[in-house]
Amino acid sequence: MPASYAYLGPEGTFTEVALRTLPEAATRELIPYVSVQSALDAVRVGEAEAAFVPIENSVEGGITTTLDELVAGTPLMIYREVLLSITFALLVRPGTKLSDIKTVTAHPAAQPQVRNWLKTHLPDAVWESAASNADGARLVQEGRYDAAFAGEFAAARYGLEALETEIHDAENAQTRFVLVGRPARPAAPTGADKTSVVLWQRDDHPGGLRDLLGEFATRGINLMLLQSRPTGAGIGNYCFCVDAEGHISDRRMAEALTGLKRICLQVRYLGSYPRADVRPGEVRPPFPGTSDEEFVGAADWVARCQDGRF
Amino acid sequence: MPASYAYLGPEGTFTEVALRTLPEAATRELIPYVSVQSALDAVRVGEAEAAFVPIENSVEGGITTTLDELVAGTPLMIYREVLLSITFALLVRPGTKLSDIKTVTAHPAAQPQVRNWLKTHLPDAVWESAASNADGARLVQEGRYDAAFAGEFAAARYGLEALETEIHDAENAQTRFVLVGRPARPAAPTGADKTSVVLWQRDDHPGGLRDLLGEFATRGINLMLLQSRPTGAGIGNYCFCVDAEGHISDRRMAEALTGLKRICLQVRYLGSYPRADVRPGEVRPPFPGTSDEEFVGAADWVARCQDGRF
Amino acid sequence: MPASYAYLGPEGTFTEVALRTLPEAATRELIPYVSVQSALDAVRVGEAEAAFVPIENSVEGGITTTLDELVAGTPLMIYREVLLSITFALLVRPGTKLSDIKTVTAHPAAQPQVRNWLKTHLPDAVWESAASNADGARLVQEGRYDAAFAGEFAAARYGLEALETEIHDAENAQTRFVLVGRPARPAAPTGADKTSVVLWQRDDHPGGLRDLLGEFATRGINLMLLQSRPTGAGIGNYCFCVDAEGHISDRRMAEALTGLKRICLQVRYLGSYPRADVRPGEVRPPFPGTSDEEFVGAADWVARCQDGRF
Amino acid sequence: MPASYAYLGPEGTFTEVALRTLPEAATRELIPYVSVQSALDAVRVGEAEAAFVPIENSVEGGITTTLDELVAGTPLMIYREVLLSITFALLVRPGTKLSDIKTVTAHPAAQPQVRNWLKTHLPDAVWESAASNADGARLVQEGRYDAAFAGEFAAARYGLEALETEIHDAENAQTRFVLVGRPARPAAPTGADKTSVVLWQRDDHPGGLRDLLGEFATRGINLMLLQSRPTGAGIGNYCFCVDAEGHISDRRMAEALTGLKRICLQVRYLGSYPRADVRPGEVRPPFPGTSDEEFVGAADWVARCQDGRF
Repeated sequence: MPASYAYLGPEGTFTEVALRTLPEAATRELIPYVSVQSALDAVRVGEAEAAFVPIENSVEGGITTTLDELVAGTPLMIYREVLLSITFALLVRPGTKLSDIKTVTAHPAAQPQVRNWLKTHLPDAVWESAASNADGARLVQEGRYDAAFAGEFAAARYGLEALETEIHDAENAQTRFVLVGRPARPAAPTGADKTSVVLWQRDDHPGGLRDLLGEFATRGINLMLLQSRPTGAGIGNYCFCVDAEGHISDRRMAEALTGLKRICLQVRYLGSYPRADVRPGEVRPPFPGTSDEEFVGAADWVARCQDGRF
Repeated sequence: MPASYAYLGPEGTFTEVALRTLPEAATRELIPYVSVQSALDAVRVGEAEAAFVPIENSVEGGITTTLDELVAGTPLMIYREVLLSITFALLVRPGTKLSDIKTVTAHPAAQPQVRNWLKTHLPDAVWESAASNADGARLVQEGRYDAAFAGEFAAARYGLEALETEIHDAENAQTRFVLVGRPARPAAPTGADKTSVVLWQRDDHPGGLRDLLGEFATRGINLMLLQSRPTGAGIGNYCFCVDAEGHISDRRMAEALTGLKRICLQVRYLGSYPRADVRPGEVRPPFPGTSDEEFVGAADWVARCQDGRF
Repeated sequence: MPASYAYLGPEGTFTEVALRTLPEAATRELIPYVSVQSALDAVRVGEAEAAFVPIENSVEGGITTTLDELVAGTPLMIYREVLLSITFALLVRPGTKLSDIKTVTAHPAAQPQVRNWLKTHLPDAVWESAASNADGARLVQEGRYDAAFAGEFAAARYGLEALETEIHDAENAQTRFVLVGRPARPAAPTGADKTSVVLWQRDDHPGGLRDLLGEFATRGINLMLLQSRPTGAGIGNYCFCVDAEGHISDRRMAEALTGLKRICLQVRYLGSYPRADVRPGEVRPPFPGTSDEEFVGAADWVARCQDGRF
Repeated sequence: MPASYAYLGPEGTFTEVALRTLPEAATRELIPYVSVQSALDAVRVGEAEAAFVPIENSVEGGITTTLDELVAGTPLMIYREVLLSITFALLVRPGTKLSDIKTVTAHPAAQPQVRNWLKTHLPDAVWESAASNADGARLVQEGRYDAAFAGEFAAARYGLEALETEIHDAENAQTRFVLVGRPARPAAPTGADKTSVVLWQRDDHPGGLRDLLGEFATRGINLMLLQSRPTGAGIGNYCFCVDAEGHISDRRMAEALTGLKRICLQVRYLGSYPRADVRPGEVRPPFPGTSDEEFVGAADWVARCQDGRF
């Protein structure tokens, strides 16, 4: 197994910064790839041990290219997640003043985050999209554009300086990244875990989706993401990417997944991994009747009844 | 263990007739008791191997004295059920004509079944209640009353003759009896089984009872009886006697009972036993997603996911 | 309309005592009837303005004769309810001592309430059932039995004295009575009301009853009684008598009943009337989203959407 | 009101072709806009009567830019929908042969649809994204690229010819477009209609989303789209764009929307309009208990009960 992590490049983007927050990243070779697909394929073919890609952000929601890769093709599994707050710096060549800026660039995904700032401070600047925020910085370095929105960390790499930092339209702008590898035994539960699955409905009828969600709800499991994705069978045909609170080794989660497996056309397990948004001590306790102890106790009771010892 | 069956006496009632339809009754001493309570207590204290008592009929619904005995006290278990069609004969001393009849008697439970017949044929006869239908026949034999409604089979025992037979107001009048013993390993599933439980809600809130029933419904289990009984904690406090289609060894039933055990204040298992109303071949197949094979397959899949082999 | 109330007699029973707690009873002639059926028939044929009968008690649960009369036949409606705490006195002829008592009598419904007291204080006394507690007292007066369990208020009427009072096995022993009349506009809501209905399922399938109860649950309506009663179509065929918190003029109740009417084979409305167990100020507020204001506001919003004004 | 329709330009794209299938388009001036946002803003400020934009396709699912515009800002309403099958032609300058093609271009959304075709027929061609498929054709005309994937209809406009037609990776590739205007009274129901809403949950708890979907499910309403979109309140905070079968003037839909309005934090109505996928005669009948007649009949019954006439 190669000791390398693929990630969505180029170097110097938020993705790389997020990846480097993982302790294990320090001991791997980190290799940028040009697309989510190519990074995940590197894992599939064994070129990389795992791939690090964005999966959800607070402006765009679920990142469909990543979800679609996880939904289809050779199964992969999420090992870890990272949350990164996203704020932009306005990077310019040294000496550039705000009044000098006629053109700005960044990845299109940055646009919703800087739109209001632009309206206020650079109402006449022309926006041009770049392939990535890092690439935008490079194009400023080359003189193609006057300024780029990028992470402040990108300034040094491209010999630029930050005219402004902490630019963000939405408070709490965050991107969630996942480290994705080949199927393996999930990491041990930490007490604050998340489980990801993809669900395909058996058939389409009133209440079908409600019943799927009921498998989580009746066991007191909260959902954190529900993202529909086309199945490829034509318009109106969707599967559902679901993130749910808890670990597959929790009894309530195991039973919910068993129920889904029974009633769905197909279920794809995408892994159970530590939550990045809370620490174990901050997770609220299970709802009455849904703790592991209660599941075990109830199953024991049924076994005793089956055996005539009640 | 005494090789005797207690039953709700006296001799010569529908209960005895129903009991004698059980093959195993031929090899036991059958002992009449004066009440459901005393028959069941005979089992509790070890005087009898099992007790045979009515539990439900098509006119009265659940028979509360039997249900209340099963709900409270030392746990008992239902081993078998018997369904008996109930039609009455009008028993008189030989030579009595219809026009001679001024007084009629029977157990009060017979009254709703013969009321219309009486209105038509004996509108002026005075009704007096008897302790049992057999006792009514005895009182006719003794000359206390002119006629008794009882099973036709009672005529010979009391030296009476049947002026009329097949009397019943309601079509399909049936009584359901159960053979009750001490807790034991339930009989093996036959493919057409019933499971009885008593459920106590954890607390009283909108949707509480709906959620209990949901444990059966979401697993495709049909209910055959839902009878509320007071808990003794004051008016408005009820527990629920439930008969559900299936056997505790069915995966769907075992999981439903596990769920109920988790969310209820208390669950009392009353047994799984062959249904008397249908034969195994007549039972409809499990709903999609609820067969044993699907439960086992889904649980295996979850186990493989937990193990990283998916 | 005759200014009289029929009630389940004879005089001197708990029923009469409960009836007299109603202010309007003071202005009516109160006429005892020999059975629940005859009292209700008196209303049906116009002999009485209303009938007062027991409907539920904390030992027996729903009183089936009353429920069955309300379920079938010409529709009637519940106007009022009364709760009465039930404690017994041991009535004897003056001069009788406890040690003199060889036989005791009362209505069979009293037996569960005095059983423990009897075991302790009169373990050898022989029990004989009477047609009513008042009738038992009369039989003691006549010398047929040594003692009767009845309400203390019955002593004077039959020239007896109470050897012991406040006899009751269960704490909180209560009986609930209802004043039943012909269908009429329900009394105005008080803020603490109850609505009674009878529900017949359209067909029998897993989840059928759960879905009926869901019409209440999804609108935040708590249930206070759920009593199954045979439909007369054979064993296992039940309808359900339901008492629910709230008044038919509450929006949430009106919508729940509309939903039930749509999905049930049949619904019989039995009335909305003030609760006897709590006062208006003690009722908990409606669940979020279920107040009249929220219903009206939401319906207005839909009307505006239908009209293009949103 | 200006008699013009804005649409997502440029001219010569699938959007324009879809728009021209609407009879009313023949009587309006059709004005291309550079983005979904600018087309919808033209409606908001009164520059255009309505705007025509893509909202969902069988490869990408919900089109997030369109959904996000409908979710936020000044309310708009969907008047009509159009379904268009999407197949691509490979457009080249006259005389170009397949073996001459080194570079290809198209809008990025076309890429998933032609990827397999490219792998097979032009494995070495370099892909460059264009701002639109029409713009890609224009760039081929200008000689910037060798070939463009676009609708066959674009060939004539740009003086190109189609080397290949009917290119599509997925069978049944379709895009759904909507005509969006200012809030107005919805078009009359046709018998085959769709209603679109946006739902914001009141709070996040297990079963919250299930309960929202239950408002549709319990009234027999099928869902056709459920697309989560970020609320802007930080990662993990979503609202839900829902398309449901039926018209707001259907009783079941009106009641479902009333229920959602009560239990949601916020509901935005996006319109009721004829379905493009089926004709009125092809729609399955309402589920038992959910027809307009049954709603009206049930409401009438409740009104009679409230009035004492039952």
